[in-house]
Amino acid sequence: MSCPLPSDGRDRITLAHGSGGRLTRRLVEEIFAPAFDNALLAPLCDAAVWTEHAGRLAFTTDAYVVSPLVFPGGDIGHLAVCGTVNDLAMMGARPKHLSAAFVLEEGLPLAVLKDLVRSMAACAREAGVAIVTGDTKVVERGKGDGLYVTTAGVGVCATATPLGPSMIADGDVVIVNGDLGRHGMAIMAHRAGLEFDEPLLSDVACLHEPVLALIEAGIPLHCLRDLTRGGLATAIVELAQASARGVVVDGGAIVVSRPVAAACDLLGLDPLYVANEGRFVACVPASAADAALAVLHAHPLAREARVVGRVGGVTPGWAVLETPYGTRQKLDLLSGDQLPRIC
Amino acid sequence: MSCPLPSDGRDRITLAHGSGGRLTRRLVEEIFAPAFDNALLAPLCDAAVWTEHAGRLAFTTDAYVVSPLVFPGGDIGHLAVCGTVNDLAMMGARPKHLSAAFVLEEGLPLAVLKDLVRSMAACAREAGVAIVTGDTKVVERGKGDGLYVTTAGVGVCATATPLGPSMIADGDVVIVNGDLGRHGMAIMAHRAGLEFDEPLLSDVACLHEPVLALIEAGIPLHCLRDLTRGGLATAIVELAQASARGVVVDGGAIVVSRPVAAACDLLGLDPLYVANEGRFVACVPASAADAALAVLHAHPLAREARVVGRVGGVTPGWAVLETPYGTRQKLDLLSGDQLPRIC
Repeated sequence: MSCPLPSDGRDRITLAHGSGGRLTRRLVEEIFAPAFDNALLAPLCDAAVWTEHAGRLAFTTDAYVVSPLVFPGGDIGHLAVCGTVNDLAMMGARPKHLSAAFVLEEGLPLAVLKDLVRSMAACAREAGVAIVTGDTKVVERGKGDGLYVTTAGVGVCATATPLGPSMIADGDVVIVNGDLGRHGMAIMAHRAGLEFDEPLLSDVACLHEPVLALIEAGIPLHCLRDLTRGGLATAIVELAQASARGVVVDGGAIVVSRPVAAACDLLGLDPLYVANEGRFVACVPASAADAALAVLHAHPLAREARVVGRVGGVTPGWAVLETPYGTRQKLDLLSGDQLPRIC
Repeated sequence: MSCPLPSDGRDRITLAHGSGGRLTRRLVEEIFAPAFDNALLAPLCDAAVWTEHAGRLAFTTDAYVVSPLVFPGGDIGHLAVCGTVNDLAMMGARPKHLSAAFVLEEGLPLAVLKDLVRSMAACAREAGVAIVTGDTKVVERGKGDGLYVTTAGVGVCATATPLGPSMIADGDVVIVNGDLGRHGMAIMAHRAGLEFDEPLLSDVACLHEPVLALIEAGIPLHCLRDLTRGGLATAIVELAQASARGVVVDGGAIVVSRPVAAACDLLGLDPLYVANEGRFVACVPASAADAALAVLHAHPLAREARVVGRVGGVTPGWAVLETPYGTRQKLDLLSGDQLPRIC
């Protein structure tokens, strides 16, 4: 940055940073604009404007309130970019432009804001998306928790036909791109002060590349879903209900890393319900499973992809977990909140 | 609504409403989906998808943290829809689809949430936009202030050429669509417990209709800007700097209502710097001023539209206030925050 803010440790967010006056302008000109640096943001107008070809667009938003702001394997900025990129990717869309709206708590050190904004910018650059518009508000001490950020995103659909639960058919297989439960347990273990021999890091990652690789390879995708809040189990329950198809999850095919399993044991949590931020399921016809796995195995974020379920053979609308010893158990949504503020 | 939540007064937001499980689903199915009711939202997928023609798109976002949630003349839901509609309109775009991401504080009465969501839905319906995607997070008591909401929006540009400060030219006039300072003073007077003979209501309103009327009438618009945080003065300073043109504001042409003037007097505030949520300036060539005013005067939100300034005749990049008694005073951005959390 050519014009850094002084960083003597006393520089913190004040209510005046949210006034729309001189200090708001400094935040924009000294922190946001240089970090996010792109031609659509540069005019700093009320909205970003670009020319789009005809086609199907995807549009999504998510608020991020994760605590702590920085966690093992990521931070709220990284998470906010990946989460919105992934929501677009799950509709088969190539993510294009993002917005970012910040709610800052009075007293937040500017150095913390700068680090998180740099993290967002780096993640966006790596993902090939631009943060083209944004907003900043400030709330009084005790009315926030450092920083909340809401991202929205626009993408361009890359599939010939729309994806969604209504496309799921009996005979589909359910593929997941890796082991489960890293994001939720990285945060919960960090909060509980647990340490393991192997580091327990969030899996937070942008998933559009493996998804676009599947599309470009001509895999007939039926439905994609990322496994965030509520984990694999919640996603499968929702897909079963929304598609009115029965889905059987093969418990023996689920992979959980040693530290995630240990943390789940200690904290009494079921890894099937623990949040991920770099995992998704793809429902594809069984006949395309091998080709889909071959494409996924070539991508660093999906080297461990495997079939973990199949559609059909059980009551329509039900999601059922089949254990390695042959018993079956109906999966359902959880009633309570085992993992507050993990995203 | 066909399936109302019980409303015995004890129903409040809990952390479990943010879990992604059963209670999150109830919020979506019983509050958000029925109120926002539209075909793109209905699939409740990770993103909304629609087919768009080729053209210029506008994309914007704003976070809303106004306190109190309900204020004279509006509420945070109404404000959030209008604010995003207006940011799109200021780029000459017809607003189309909105997103809404909520950060709810544990303990918020569900009845309050329902009322605010209904208000958003009614405002969106009236404006002809759909809220097509969203998200909900919950934070612990004392980490929020009831409800924050961030809206983003996508619109389709309706002008042949882009609008913006770079289009402003010497000889342009600056038109404003009404009196100034209502929104900020309605909230500040309410907080201070001030009452006046005439009610002091926010001017919050969606401005796309008068803007689109100008475009459809063929008025050669150069630049539009809504007069939110920082009021008219801040907007004019920013336009002068961004366009590198001098702008002279005719103080004698500014209209401030009696209760706004009284509240500003009592609280020691300058109405030129007070926020509006239903006011905008349009920069147009002087030769088009009469035609523009004729179009605006036909619209209920712009019956009092008038020329309040002109471009040129002063140092480029400067904004200058010319008083009725002929003195000139340079306008600048404010350093502090006179009006915290008004939007």
